[in-house]
Amino acid sequence: MENFEFCVPTHILFGKGQIEKLPDVINGFGKKVLLTYGGGSIKKTGLYDKIKELLADCEIFELSGIAPNPKVDSVREGVALCREHNIDVILAVGGGSVIDCSKGIASARYYEGDAWDMIATRAEITKALPIVTVLTIAATGSEADFGAVITNPDTNEKLALNGFPLFPKVSILDPEYTFSVPAKQTAAGSIDILSHLMEQYFVPASTYMNDLLVEAVMKTVVKYAPIAYKEPNNYEARGQLMWASTLADNATLCNGNQLVAFSCHGIEHELSAYYDITHGVGLAIVTPRWMEYVLSDKTAPKFARFGREIFNVQGDNDMESAKLTIKVLYDFFRSLGVPMSFGELGITSEHFEEMAHHAVEAEGLEYALLPLTSKDVKAIYEMCL
Amino acid sequence: MENFEFCVPTHILFGKGQIEKLPDVINGFGKKVLLTYGGGSIKKTGLYDKIKELLADCEIFELSGIAPNPKVDSVREGVALCREHNIDVILAVGGGSVIDCSKGIASARYYEGDAWDMIATRAEITKALPIVTVLTIAATGSEADFGAVITNPDTNEKLALNGFPLFPKVSILDPEYTFSVPAKQTAAGSIDILSHLMEQYFVPASTYMNDLLVEAVMKTVVKYAPIAYKEPNNYEARGQLMWASTLADNATLCNGNQLVAFSCHGIEHELSAYYDITHGVGLAIVTPRWMEYVLSDKTAPKFARFGREIFNVQGDNDMESAKLTIKVLYDFFRSLGVPMSFGELGITSEHFEEMAHHAVEAEGLEYALLPLTSKDVKAIYEMCL
Repeated sequence: MENFEFCVPTHILFGKGQIEKLPDVINGFGKKVLLTYGGGSIKKTGLYDKIKELLADCEIFELSGIAPNPKVDSVREGVALCREHNIDVILAVGGGSVIDCSKGIASARYYEGDAWDMIATRAEITKALPIVTVLTIAATGSEADFGAVITNPDTNEKLALNGFPLFPKVSILDPEYTFSVPAKQTAAGSIDILSHLMEQYFVPASTYMNDLLVEAVMKTVVKYAPIAYKEPNNYEARGQLMWASTLADNATLCNGNQLVAFSCHGIEHELSAYYDITHGVGLAIVTPRWMEYVLSDKTAPKFARFGREIFNVQGDNDMESAKLTIKVLYDFFRSLGVPMSFGELGITSEHFEEMAHHAVEAEGLEYALLPLTSKDVKAIYEMCL
Repeated sequence: MENFEFCVPTHILFGKGQIEKLPDVINGFGKKVLLTYGGGSIKKTGLYDKIKELLADCEIFELSGIAPNPKVDSVREGVALCREHNIDVILAVGGGSVIDCSKGIASARYYEGDAWDMIATRAEITKALPIVTVLTIAATGSEADFGAVITNPDTNEKLALNGFPLFPKVSILDPEYTFSVPAKQTAAGSIDILSHLMEQYFVPASTYMNDLLVEAVMKTVVKYAPIAYKEPNNYEARGQLMWASTLADNATLCNGNQLVAFSCHGIEHELSAYYDITHGVGLAIVTPRWMEYVLSDKTAPKFARFGREIFNVQGDNDMESAKLTIKVLYDFFRSLGVPMSFGELGITSEHFEEMAHHAVEAEGLEYALLPLTSKDVKAIYEMCL
């Protein structure tokens, strides 16, 4: 069992109607609010109006149009608004992209210099504006972690940003706000959750308890993702996925494991950076290929256990079970309607060389479960074609 | 899935050598420290000297001799010290009793009136001195929760105290500090952990994920308690139990369940209040009898599942499995060397009437899984003779 530090100070308000507490929550930080959101789905669902109504006595400024794989330009725009209007609190209403962008804004607001410099130089985050979130998709876990990922389309870079002040102060998690998430995004979000779990499970050393805890949440995702995919208004399915997204991401389940760089996330981030694809879709394509690539006598037992516990795969030996598991996982992703090859997304081998080089460098893949060179990553990309 | 609020702001420093961070931690709160501890085992193990050495530039005042089932007199004594010396931070070095007592002190320090009034009237806790803990036994989970239980021997009352300001700010969890815990206390602590898990598992409604999460930690306790019992210096066993104690107690695993009053804890608290027995020992005696008493077609399926998942019990039907499970659980406790009847502790039926009456009133047992009247509780006590 490894040493660890652990603290998740985010206050979670989970369930139907928790939005009614928003005025009290916001008033705890001030009256000048930067409301951040994405493409406007919150206007269609009525959430936008509800929030404006609840916060009628606040001064609300808006940053809308935050895109998936949030771009540094949105961060810059938010920072300018925060400085101009002396914002007290950021209210992020959306999924991981909106929350991640808000984390970039909250910290860059106090950074002297350009936001991308702060991110690219990995400047220490010592101060940030308070962030309150209203989550609208179960996926990244950004609602209760201290990290964010921001993309710079000019340099094709997608880089992480971390710091204790980035934990949202309060996150409102009402599963009903995810009823309107389309099937495709429901699938991608669920795959992101499952991937977080796999990345903390396929590690050089894990504890007895953590393996069981991670399996508990994996089973939950595998049970409820297909239900939410088919029945968007199923509260139990949406609720379990939402809480799974939070637990899967914030180290609750892997404290004491020997953690290493996240292989599939690292390999995928380059896809999103170069092709702006949905993170969960990229993960679905990459993961079975990565498993195939790193399959060995050393990795087979854990892959086999994963298959046995999560998908009831029964092979004659670990290697056979592991191979079957990779296939079953592929089929599971496919059953959620996800494109399962680069070809389906129009991605060619054009940038593989530089993407692979970049993945290894930016994501520390030499410290992954199986240490990966750029040659390895390129080979995995080629398997995805 | 039920609504819930969740926040555990305690910063955990887990593992070997984390004590070296203590000076930085304490300096964040001030220089005047109230060091609280129990019967002096920390002097035998060297932990006391280590802490004095690390905090050489602090002004340390001491409250020692805090007893199991901590008494309100210790709270009063601590409050007087805090006021007299204008203490900045309480450093609780010990197990649940020392930490609970420190929580009483931290809050009563700001209460105008006697500490017992604050507890007995359930006064709202809005302010408390910061608490830092160094945990020396895995059991109650008080190292990362906002509750405490304080006993008043004058009135034979053992009452709970709760409030957000009572969360320890930082808890140092080094499994090596539990190597010296005697086998009997190791058993009692493990049973307390298991009981917390059972109380959040045997509820009117639980989620799919929570059942699996709780089972994960139950399996861990059942695997490692016998190992720690026999091999006190087994780091992995001590570490897994220590982290299990934290997770078992702070709602991480039961958010979204329909929670009800803790039956066995409620019934046991009276035993500790009247006879000052070890909490975990009381729980071991009470739990199988409570299960037997509430066994019905309604409770049998979950009891059977518990037996199947945790102890591999296989009966022909749920009722048979449940009955076997109760026996297996009894034998498991017995295998840990715990007295399994009141007779072994010299407890007679003398106070059953008032204890039962009190348990129902103080612990809200009319809101338990099977609502219990004082007649029910008395019957359960009689089964324990």
